[in-house]
Amino acid sequence: MSAADAVTDALGQLHSRFAGVREGLPAAYIPQLARADPDAFGLALVSMDGHRYSTGDADVPFTLQSISKPFVYALALSVLGLDEVGRWVNAEPSGEAFNAISLEPATGRPDNAMVNAGAIVTTALIPGTPDEAAFERILRFLGRFAGRELDVDEEVYASEAATGDRNRALAYLIRSAGLLPFDPVAAVETYFRQCAVRATAVDLATMAATLAHGGVNPVTGETVVTAAVAAQVLAVMATCGMYNGSGDWLLRVGLPAKSGVSGGLIAAGPARFGLAAYSPPLDATGTSVRGYGALVALSQRFGLHLMNNPALSGSTVTLATTADDLPTAPAGGPERALRERVGVVAAQGALDFTAAERVLFALDESGPDRTGSVVLDLREVTTIDSVALAMLHAGLARLAQDGRRAAVVDPAGRLGPLGPTRERTGQELPRFASREEAVEECARVLAEGD
Amino acid sequence: MSAADAVTDALGQLHSRFAGVREGLPAAYIPQLARADPDAFGLALVSMDGHRYSTGDADVPFTLQSISKPFVYALALSVLGLDEVGRWVNAEPSGEAFNAISLEPATGRPDNAMVNAGAIVTTALIPGTPDEAAFERILRFLGRFAGRELDVDEEVYASEAATGDRNRALAYLIRSAGLLPFDPVAAVETYFRQCAVRATAVDLATMAATLAHGGVNPVTGETVVTAAVAAQVLAVMATCGMYNGSGDWLLRVGLPAKSGVSGGLIAAGPARFGLAAYSPPLDATGTSVRGYGALVALSQRFGLHLMNNPALSGSTVTLATTADDLPTAPAGGPERALRERVGVVAAQGALDFTAAERVLFALDESGPDRTGSVVLDLREVTTIDSVALAMLHAGLARLAQDGRRAAVVDPAGRLGPLGPTRERTGQELPRFASREEAVEECARVLAEGD
Amino acid sequence: MSAADAVTDALGQLHSRFAGVREGLPAAYIPQLARADPDAFGLALVSMDGHRYSTGDADVPFTLQSISKPFVYALALSVLGLDEVGRWVNAEPSGEAFNAISLEPATGRPDNAMVNAGAIVTTALIPGTPDEAAFERILRFLGRFAGRELDVDEEVYASEAATGDRNRALAYLIRSAGLLPFDPVAAVETYFRQCAVRATAVDLATMAATLAHGGVNPVTGETVVTAAVAAQVLAVMATCGMYNGSGDWLLRVGLPAKSGVSGGLIAAGPARFGLAAYSPPLDATGTSVRGYGALVALSQRFGLHLMNNPALSGSTVTLATTADDLPTAPAGGPERALRERVGVVAAQGALDFTAAERVLFALDESGPDRTGSVVLDLREVTTIDSVALAMLHAGLARLAQDGRRAAVVDPAGRLGPLGPTRERTGQELPRFASREEAVEECARVLAEGD
Amino acid sequence: MSAADAVTDALGQLHSRFAGVREGLPAAYIPQLARADPDAFGLALVSMDGHRYSTGDADVPFTLQSISKPFVYALALSVLGLDEVGRWVNAEPSGEAFNAISLEPATGRPDNAMVNAGAIVTTALIPGTPDEAAFERILRFLGRFAGRELDVDEEVYASEAATGDRNRALAYLIRSAGLLPFDPVAAVETYFRQCAVRATAVDLATMAATLAHGGVNPVTGETVVTAAVAAQVLAVMATCGMYNGSGDWLLRVGLPAKSGVSGGLIAAGPARFGLAAYSPPLDATGTSVRGYGALVALSQRFGLHLMNNPALSGSTVTLATTADDLPTAPAGGPERALRERVGVVAAQGALDFTAAERVLFALDESGPDRTGSVVLDLREVTTIDSVALAMLHAGLARLAQDGRRAAVVDPAGRLGPLGPTRERTGQELPRFASREEAVEECARVLAEGD
Repeated sequence: MSAADAVTDALGQLHSRFAGVREGLPAAYIPQLARADPDAFGLALVSMDGHRYSTGDADVPFTLQSISKPFVYALALSVLGLDEVGRWVNAEPSGEAFNAISLEPATGRPDNAMVNAGAIVTTALIPGTPDEAAFERILRFLGRFAGRELDVDEEVYASEAATGDRNRALAYLIRSAGLLPFDPVAAVETYFRQCAVRATAVDLATMAATLAHGGVNPVTGETVVTAAVAAQVLAVMATCGMYNGSGDWLLRVGLPAKSGVSGGLIAAGPARFGLAAYSPPLDATGTSVRGYGALVALSQRFGLHLMNNPALSGSTVTLATTADDLPTAPAGGPERALRERVGVVAAQGALDFTAAERVLFALDESGPDRTGSVVLDLREVTTIDSVALAMLHAGLARLAQDGRRAAVVDPAGRLGPLGPTRERTGQELPRFASREEAVEECARVLAEGD
Repeated sequence: MSAADAVTDALGQLHSRFAGVREGLPAAYIPQLARADPDAFGLALVSMDGHRYSTGDADVPFTLQSISKPFVYALALSVLGLDEVGRWVNAEPSGEAFNAISLEPATGRPDNAMVNAGAIVTTALIPGTPDEAAFERILRFLGRFAGRELDVDEEVYASEAATGDRNRALAYLIRSAGLLPFDPVAAVETYFRQCAVRATAVDLATMAATLAHGGVNPVTGETVVTAAVAAQVLAVMATCGMYNGSGDWLLRVGLPAKSGVSGGLIAAGPARFGLAAYSPPLDATGTSVRGYGALVALSQRFGLHLMNNPALSGSTVTLATTADDLPTAPAGGPERALRERVGVVAAQGALDFTAAERVLFALDESGPDRTGSVVLDLREVTTIDSVALAMLHAGLARLAQDGRRAAVVDPAGRLGPLGPTRERTGQELPRFASREEAVEECARVLAEGD
Repeated sequence: MSAADAVTDALGQLHSRFAGVREGLPAAYIPQLARADPDAFGLALVSMDGHRYSTGDADVPFTLQSISKPFVYALALSVLGLDEVGRWVNAEPSGEAFNAISLEPATGRPDNAMVNAGAIVTTALIPGTPDEAAFERILRFLGRFAGRELDVDEEVYASEAATGDRNRALAYLIRSAGLLPFDPVAAVETYFRQCAVRATAVDLATMAATLAHGGVNPVTGETVVTAAVAAQVLAVMATCGMYNGSGDWLLRVGLPAKSGVSGGLIAAGPARFGLAAYSPPLDATGTSVRGYGALVALSQRFGLHLMNNPALSGSTVTLATTADDLPTAPAGGPERALRERVGVVAAQGALDFTAAERVLFALDESGPDRTGSVVLDLREVTTIDSVALAMLHAGLARLAQDGRRAAVVDPAGRLGPLGPTRERTGQELPRFASREEAVEECARVLAEGD
Repeated sequence: MSAADAVTDALGQLHSRFAGVREGLPAAYIPQLARADPDAFGLALVSMDGHRYSTGDADVPFTLQSISKPFVYALALSVLGLDEVGRWVNAEPSGEAFNAISLEPATGRPDNAMVNAGAIVTTALIPGTPDEAAFERILRFLGRFAGRELDVDEEVYASEAATGDRNRALAYLIRSAGLLPFDPVAAVETYFRQCAVRATAVDLATMAATLAHGGVNPVTGETVVTAAVAAQVLAVMATCGMYNGSGDWLLRVGLPAKSGVSGGLIAAGPARFGLAAYSPPLDATGTSVRGYGALVALSQRFGLHLMNNPALSGSTVTLATTADDLPTAPAGGPERALRERVGVVAAQGALDFTAAERVLFALDESGPDRTGSVVLDLREVTTIDSVALAMLHAGLARLAQDGRRAAVVDPAGRLGPLGPTRERTGQELPRFASREEAVEECARVLAEGD
């Protein structure tokens, strides 16, 4: 037993709450799915640090079905880029069922990659390579998301292929529009295989976590797709992933998600978690009844709504004061008067644009009457992204232009080469290893200036 | 000049980049809008701390038009709740233009509150009070979002009313469905007034920032709506706010947004910023050409895509070590062996479920062989939400059940009453003001146990 | 009692057959219609000679409702012409319900004049005159179809106006398209009055008979509209009159028809009959249950399917022989040999293009070896339309150019001035009062030629 | 040269008028159609007597394409009946293009047999027989309509099959609905062959004439389908044959019609003519430009609008008088007074229900004060259909019950066995060979009665 078992406990409570639900029926359209165990029910959660939590039948393999769509879309985006993929598949919610025809009248372009028509086109866009056929490439790619090699349920595939007339119809319709430089009729067979790839709820939660974690698999540490591609896939899941219930889902649950007719359901809390549920009985829209219930409850109970992110606020600037208020300040004397004129700002955590704005604003506010020198203490900062870096340099340059002396406490060198600031201001930005040294330097400069 | 002017500079650069764009025309459907200055162009950004940045014509008042919709929807949600509002207005993207009819065949329920039909129903749902008529209530409510009293452009209102046949048609259609306990035909006149409410880009950015800030106006500090309502409104803006281009907008820009035919455009980065643009010339979909360009660029340049939030990661746990590695550790001796068996975990910032999981996992990992005592240092933690609080107590109780002694460094009492943990474990969780005291206590207990 | 009572008997048998049907309910959307007697059931048939037959409640007045639409459309066509009316109202089946919106996206033009949107536009197109307001003009025009002055059921009108939100919505929608030079919002009130005009089943059968009779009221003899307008209205009734069941109706019943929610139903057999039924209980599509059944049975039992018109065949040419086979032929002798070379063709009835072709073909076939002279006996012909006249002259001219002498027996002068033929051939076409005279003349000419 | 050449001349004038039209392009979707001679232009007309008229390239063979649809539908109706066919294919206009998907959401039933989806289902419904495969049966059936054996353009078929993805898509869509007991995926290949059957404009006009002639090929005299089936096919052509321009076509042209992308166009004037045009350049809706123009002009110039049939009126009853007004009446004396009391009615042509009503009404009107005896002279009547026969017997029986003596002049026995009347009245209906005999008998009876 351990502290983090509290997370497993929480999943277990949700499992208990929904395990008794008896509504819904496994998908009937192919016999292999209809034979699924209606009692099977697993939940899994994977954190951004790659911690895996699960309960119930989270290690039972089942076929991905439509859950394969966002990941193959991610592969297409990685290979061809958003603009090229967007020429063949739009990204608008169709307001229609998963197997709706949903082709733009003028272009024959499917509405989005989450409906079957769009998924078939997406699969058609994946080229094979000299080393592997298109499907092998897809299979390996899916495995990188899951963190292990996946395989195909050949029996389900055979059934899928035998009953896939509607998907074949979509493929012929798309090919008849004559616009695609790829062959969707051939691709539809690859699509049937991709739907029959087998994974567990834990695998799926890992796959979702990889998207949530900016494309880096948090378990294996492998970069599967770029952060941009991961964000794009999540955006399409947010508007189109739950078919014609996508709007209501985002409103109530607030998480990009994707369901499959085999009873799988994934959701991603960006920079938080990957989630997955597995339970074969489906509601009228083809979504797992227990999975839907459990993920709604999980989001609400643990405050995972994408639009509700209070944890982000108020945690960047940990100190904004003047040097004479520091515990290290010597008592009394003329030095103290100088220290009064040295502002001190300390930041922590990862700095992005949002955080950088806070830091800059705090620098302005520091010091009496918004004048005097300032010390920026970055020792507790973990990372600074390129946008924040540019903002910090620009802001420090502004201070210098304003005649305010600045010094940074940055033993780890997170601010990078200080050239950019020097170029703008003609002055060196002094960098120190300890806060006190920086304060003393600033006080010294002020004394000189007096 | 000051450091934060770097933010204004960044806005200014975007302004320069798009000011020269000559595409689009002001809305022609009412003369007052057609007469708008095609060169007018303002940008504004309001941070979660209420810092306001702007450039260009950001103080020029113009009418809200459709930008009023999400805020009146917020009022309806506040007064009636999501379930009741949802009975009359759905929350699904319609895939259609703003003035599409978009009523569900069976129920007459509009697709969502961002299309005109849904907005009229939403307005119809707002009851007056003994003290003020429905419109006065709406106007005052909009003012609370903006942080100041707003007024109506009576000339635009008169034009709006004179040319509003299509909206009247929608109102009659809805009333003819006979399901609404309110009168949309009367409400359509209120709706025309609400569209004619006047605000500036800075006002609009403040309104968007209020949604992004969990319903609390970051400038005035007033709680305008609950965090839940703010999240719901943002979710609907994300899927429906840009009409039939909503999917592509979320894919590329990644921000909940809403445009109006007067040339306004708002976007919200949850827990980050409220953004607004104003420029009358519109594209074919009725969105401000320069505003669209500027917000796309803003999002991409400053990394504001909702699904791409790297700053969230890696900043919770600042220390996970053993006590003998602490700088305060006394050198050598038997004490040192005891301190080796005391894990120390320090956290910072605001703790939610995600952060709590990280802390609990770190506690488990701390100490040699995942045994021994642990010290949890919460001094740098700013807030702990109720979910995180429950998780921490549950995790600490788990440790105690496991025979691992825990102590917290929590001089600010952020962990609240320690009763819950005691109830589960029968033990008091010792709380200290300094880390060293906690380490000593743990070492002492371990020594006793030996 | 009399022979033609056999027709009344036939109607009576249909009445008995359907009077017991208990399905359907009177229209519920306005109280006045809901209070209609569910047992009321009348049938009426008016012939092209103005003979009226009826059974049951055929003299009970009820409101026209949608049955007014084809007649007001006829007025619009009469006033403005097909091309002008067609600019504002299309003539395509909408495949939708009567109150569907059915406006062309690009133009706002309603699909056809039988759906409400199209009917409102049609009414809007009717201008008033210096002498009477638009509605008075419509009312008087409807009366000319019925053969008597009609009036308005003011109570139904008041209800109609009170519950007509959907129609007002349509009017506002159409006006908002901004294309119409008339005001549908004002017209919708006129439309409500037109729907509340009161008539009996016998009136309605007379109205339908007027359309079937080329626009001439067969009872009063008044020309209400031109034959072209009558045909146009019937064509639109054929494709659009039964809303989204129009195709099946034409397939099975084969008659242009129009139903109304008050329980009326009319059908027209062009050049045969006007039919009407009245029975308030409606089916799910808003059509009178008994009326539908009775008219289907009537069409099938009496062979009225528009596409099945065997009576037209074989009745034009009553004689095609040679003169020596005529009963008047003198026995034996050289004269007989000459008569052998004179063909005789007798026609009867009304001659149109179809009949003229038969006559011309018979003339070619007459006489031995398709040579010799021909006598065309037109004494039994009742009328020759302008097309047939031109064809006959052209054909007779052809014969003359071919060296075949022709003579006509045409004491009534139906062939008109014989100038046209003379101009083409340089010969006079001899015209006689008796067949024998004509034969003798032809034989004489042949004798001369020998 | 001959009189009927006037008909050919009329076609020739239309040909000249439209031959110079240079708009439109041959169908491009398969190379074989694109290579068609754009100047080819033929017109043909076949009368109900089997007379064939043509001009231009009326003997050039081309492929039927969609013109095959109504005839294969006729075969399906003949084999399975309307109710069974209607279970699988509806008969409603779709308001959509020929290759629209047009399947009913609930049933997957195509809208009608004139759109591709419905045509494929129709073809799928045709069973092979022990003697011939389905396609051979279809080919032979088409040949019976044309009056000669037809064959397949194998090159066009091959192209059709190579480019038929959209039709294959439709077939898969239909099969995926799972309701059809036949296989549309197999049928689509048969459908491609049926579209590639080759015929000339004269053949097509003969095929149309067969439908217009109640299913009897007027050239060969063969009954190809029943009159009911012919009427049903024409009705569907009337509402659906010109796709989404069907309503306007029926309004303006007034003829059931069907076009094909190879440039063929047929129209049928029931009981009048079959018409066909051939000219490959197509308009935007896929209809032959010259063919459309020529058939519109033909209908308008020759008064062929289905709803405008003045020739039908006024031609049934040729005499309605009293016996003393007959030329055979002896001058003066007591006999003359008796003859005054004998009405005489003479009819002509083919008698259907419409005509029978006229005869019965005339019988009632004949004689002074609607009393006395009546003579019905049927010598000029050519046929009496079963409905008219029943009506005449019923009417004559009514007269007898009323005490009015009736006699018929019916040497050809068209009234059939007189038993029915006798049974109703207990009296023999006297039948005479000459009118005078009948008058004398009636006068004699009246004299006895006095």
